[in-house]
Amino acid sequence: MYVTVLGAGDMGTAICAPIAANGHDVRLWGTRFDDHVVAALRSGQVHPRLQYPIPGTVRIYGSNHLRDAVEHAELVVLAVTSSGIDPVLDLLLEIRPQPPVMVSLAKGLYRDPAGSVCLLCDHIERRTGSPALVVGGPAKANEVVMGLPTVSVLASPDAEALATTAEVMQTAMYRFQQTLDRTGVEISAALKNAYAIAVGVATGMELATGAPHQNFKAALFPAAVLELARLADALGGSAETVYGLSGSGDLTVTVSAGRNRLLGELLGRGQTVEEALGALTATGMTIEGHAAVDHGMALARQVTGNQAETLFPLLAALHAILYEDAPVFERLWDVVGNR
Amino acid sequence: MYVTVLGAGDMGTAICAPIAANGHDVRLWGTRFDDHVVAALRSGQVHPRLQYPIPGTVRIYGSNHLRDAVEHAELVVLAVTSSGIDPVLDLLLEIRPQPPVMVSLAKGLYRDPAGSVCLLCDHIERRTGSPALVVGGPAKANEVVMGLPTVSVLASPDAEALATTAEVMQTAMYRFQQTLDRTGVEISAALKNAYAIAVGVATGMELATGAPHQNFKAALFPAAVLELARLADALGGSAETVYGLSGSGDLTVTVSAGRNRLLGELLGRGQTVEEALGALTATGMTIEGHAAVDHGMALARQVTGNQAETLFPLLAALHAILYEDAPVFERLWDVVGNR
Repeated sequence: MYVTVLGAGDMGTAICAPIAANGHDVRLWGTRFDDHVVAALRSGQVHPRLQYPIPGTVRIYGSNHLRDAVEHAELVVLAVTSSGIDPVLDLLLEIRPQPPVMVSLAKGLYRDPAGSVCLLCDHIERRTGSPALVVGGPAKANEVVMGLPTVSVLASPDAEALATTAEVMQTAMYRFQQTLDRTGVEISAALKNAYAIAVGVATGMELATGAPHQNFKAALFPAAVLELARLADALGGSAETVYGLSGSGDLTVTVSAGRNRLLGELLGRGQTVEEALGALTATGMTIEGHAAVDHGMALARQVTGNQAETLFPLLAALHAILYEDAPVFERLWDVVGNR
Repeated sequence: MYVTVLGAGDMGTAICAPIAANGHDVRLWGTRFDDHVVAALRSGQVHPRLQYPIPGTVRIYGSNHLRDAVEHAELVVLAVTSSGIDPVLDLLLEIRPQPPVMVSLAKGLYRDPAGSVCLLCDHIERRTGSPALVVGGPAKANEVVMGLPTVSVLASPDAEALATTAEVMQTAMYRFQQTLDRTGVEISAALKNAYAIAVGVATGMELATGAPHQNFKAALFPAAVLELARLADALGGSAETVYGLSGSGDLTVTVSAGRNRLLGELLGRGQTVEEALGALTATGMTIEGHAAVDHGMALARQVTGNQAETLFPLLAALHAILYEDAPVFERLWDVVGNR
């Protein structure tokens, strides 16, 4: 099969390895933010962050060569950040007004100009008219490219598309659980970064005080999973999906590594939201969890109305902390300590 | 209230702090294995492992002075290891043939001489005729004694006993979620040590190869929670309990710290079961998870018959690894990679 991956970030680049290993014709296209990556890969160097080679059969395309990369694609993998989806779809739709089946590695919530929030995969399907499958679950890109044991989740309401697409991507060490519950997978992926901020606060308190806060971290973890499960359920997805690999599995990785946790860490160490965001963005990081808290709370209100604060107290606490300067520990402890 | 804690291990000693802080009359009794702890505490030193002082109002009793410690107790906290429960109940019942309400911090499964397995709390109630409440959830003893934020779970089918007993033990920073689902709490507590061995294997592979295995760890975690939930359900408890603080919350701590994980680590590094157990027991460690795998599998067979291997494939894999020398990675990967 002829597969084009859009976005040469860590995961976009990494996923070329298993697909190429299956003998497919893989083309990797970098956005204009990936020009340095494309230059490195084309000159035979490794990806600057992954630091691991990808199969030599993968063809690399720079931002100006989207047409060559995608013209004949039978499957398109969207591997850009959630904020990059619309600009990339603009470019894609010019070349392929009716794109083929898409697999989205982008995770998130989409807020339309009127302020209404939906799942990113629903937005992608509405814009393209093509089916969008979603990949979720715990998969650090460096381990995927190295062929280390990884189990991801592939979600689509279309069972046939699921089976075909999983076959294209999976290898002996990169496996896919298949589920029809795309909503449960997408909501977990979109909001894990939000909830990871809460657990990061406990880590920050450890660093600030020198005392372990494992009990507090462990109290926050299932509270986060419970709210993700509730939100999935309210949106017509399944709580079971969240309790599995897509939600609790992915969250175990997100809370122990990743950028979003760092925002919580700085707050737990006593920085203000402004200071913490300033420090992190100065290093070039995008803290997706910050916006995800706001979008998540908006979505919760959309589907549960004035019950949202009661049903999602941890998300509401994060919102109060990030957007209303609420006291950090007190607000989180009030949620988990008084259930 | 007059509260006696039986067992001067880490948790038994630590829990004296919140109870005494509530103004109760607390007596801590050490078994004959705790003589050195009792000697230290009585001479004004800190607990040798906790390394943190307990309130001066707590009275300390050595193994020969059980009568003085327990004669007038209105609440007894059982804080011995699961294998220590029967010897301690023998002693207790001589002095108090009808003991007062008991709170069990001991976790585990009890196997009677005929080979039948039951929850430890059920065994305690049968032997004593008194109600046994169970404490579960993530609570590292050193954090409890230091007054750091901790949320535990208190479980009993008796709602009134629950409320009264939680009031005795909880403080502003040591909170209790109350649940009627004692079975869900006890099964989580009993088998988390078993499943932690699996996650430990992934850590051992990291140490052996120098390559991260976070994806593999994250794949094992929800597989473990799912099986705990299934077993709770099969025993008449609730899966929700397992998805919460008692199961997934506690497991986050158990897999990142604790002795049972170490057995998995040594196996993941390539040691045989015999070598690994030998190395750990030589340092004086009791690896509860080893027996828990065997008891857990026996219990699973008791309640689900010949469906046990299908419903609990991860537990079955651990059993094959620990008791039948099955290949470690292959057996675990076969479970999570092929769901």
